[in-house]
Amino acid sequence: MSNVLLTVAFQGTAYHGFQVQQNALSVCTVFQDALEKVLGDRPDVKGCSRTDSGVHALGYCISFHLERPIPCHKLPLAINAHLPTDIRVLSARPVPEEFHARYSSIAKQYVYRVQNSQGQDPFSRGLCWRVGSPLNLQLMQQAAAAAVGRHDFASFMSAGSKITDTVRTVTDFTVSRQGEYLLFTICADGYLYNMVRILVGTLVEIGSGRCKMPMEEIIAAADRSAAGPRAPAEGLYLDRVYYDLDGMRPGDGVPRVLLP
Amino acid sequence: MSNVLLTVAFQGTAYHGFQVQQNALSVCTVFQDALEKVLGDRPDVKGCSRTDSGVHALGYCISFHLERPIPCHKLPLAINAHLPTDIRVLSARPVPEEFHARYSSIAKQYVYRVQNSQGQDPFSRGLCWRVGSPLNLQLMQQAAAAAVGRHDFASFMSAGSKITDTVRTVTDFTVSRQGEYLLFTICADGYLYNMVRILVGTLVEIGSGRCKMPMEEIIAAADRSAAGPRAPAEGLYLDRVYYDLDGMRPGDGVPRVLLP
Repeated sequence: MSNVLLTVAFQGTAYHGFQVQQNALSVCTVFQDALEKVLGDRPDVKGCSRTDSGVHALGYCISFHLERPIPCHKLPLAINAHLPTDIRVLSARPVPEEFHARYSSIAKQYVYRVQNSQGQDPFSRGLCWRVGSPLNLQLMQQAAAAAVGRHDFASFMSAGSKITDTVRTVTDFTVSRQGEYLLFTICADGYLYNMVRILVGTLVEIGSGRCKMPMEEIIAAADRSAAGPRAPAEGLYLDRVYYDLDGMRPGDGVPRVLLP
Repeated sequence: MSNVLLTVAFQGTAYHGFQVQQNALSVCTVFQDALEKVLGDRPDVKGCSRTDSGVHALGYCISFHLERPIPCHKLPLAINAHLPTDIRVLSARPVPEEFHARYSSIAKQYVYRVQNSQGQDPFSRGLCWRVGSPLNLQLMQQAAAAAVGRHDFASFMSAGSKITDTVRTVTDFTVSRQGEYLLFTICADGYLYNMVRILVGTLVEIGSGRCKMPMEEIIAAADRSAAGPRAPAEGLYLDRVYYDLDGMRPGDGVPRVLLP
């Protein structure tokens, strides 16, 4: 028996998130169906994180224990043959017995994609948040930089979470413009419920000039009402997961799909 | 009563081409349904061309006679409110009474998009043709250049067409690489049935080294069996239609969606 780590990309439009749901199709269920066709049994799989309905992944990580002696490098092709084309296995590698895709992660990086355009585009639906009003890039970059560090992010957590320790460490948070797209890239050791979407929704309020409160004050308020609205799910991409494996630099060797 | 020209972009994945089909959903039917909700009646609309099932459009053109005194510039917003988001009206402008979106066109430009990559990408499905093998860009550029001019393109017409005059003038045909994508751009005064898809299929055979015959000979053969296979529909985009209107340079002022 060996423990295996798969990297997977998926377009989340058709799915109600990664984790198995009653009465709704999840990425995990579809993935386990494909795995069962390859292996003959249905192993319990560990996903690196829950994802909301409609959220995408460029480098999602899944680990599971393989009972049968199948060479690891043959798994991507074999599993992809049984997956719909909106879910693709990118790579497989052996990991230590105790490895767990979620609990072994030391950091995760998300990308949020805003199409900042007044124009109509039938090709981007479900893949970004379209914001028509002009956005000041520099104001958003300053606000993002102010969120970097170890803070209480309670202002950026949706109601309904049972989490009580709301302190997280954001190691990187940048905003860049690529043509008519804005890319928000954030890396942190962990995230509160909807934290990235509320951070992006707040930055867009700041960039549009509707919110004048400095990010430092929004954080210090530790109150959901101080922050902006939650940005829609369809702009969010789980980009990569960092692990400390075999003395590699965390994140090395875990491939992912790159956004165009 | 006034004659109106609309520019429309659509993702063709869900549709069986533009023209109305019995027992299959077409872009035209969905467009007319939306138009009827805005106008109260259902005008006959003229599309600039037939398109195959799954083919996309960045700047498709539709003309129709408007019976009601609605300001032209209000049409895009009004019609878009009743269209699914994979069809978007980009602009509207008045045109002379006798204008016809198809018969008044003097040239049309298509773009064909190949994802030249061995990797898996769940975000590009339906939007390009993925070719895994290496392709020689220079060989394809030379072959494309050899197709420019006034030629008998009978080698590049699918069986079943009733057309007998197979001479067309290609004014431009280029191949460029953008990251892992290859873009084939062709402009001609008219096209034979499946001509762009067979030209691209042939260039890919040439670029991969499987076809050694020079483009000049493939054209001279005037025989479908001399050319390569037909490239899949999902990589093809009707890019823009050229008209000679109001002394404008043809094509000026007709907006279109740009590929990322």
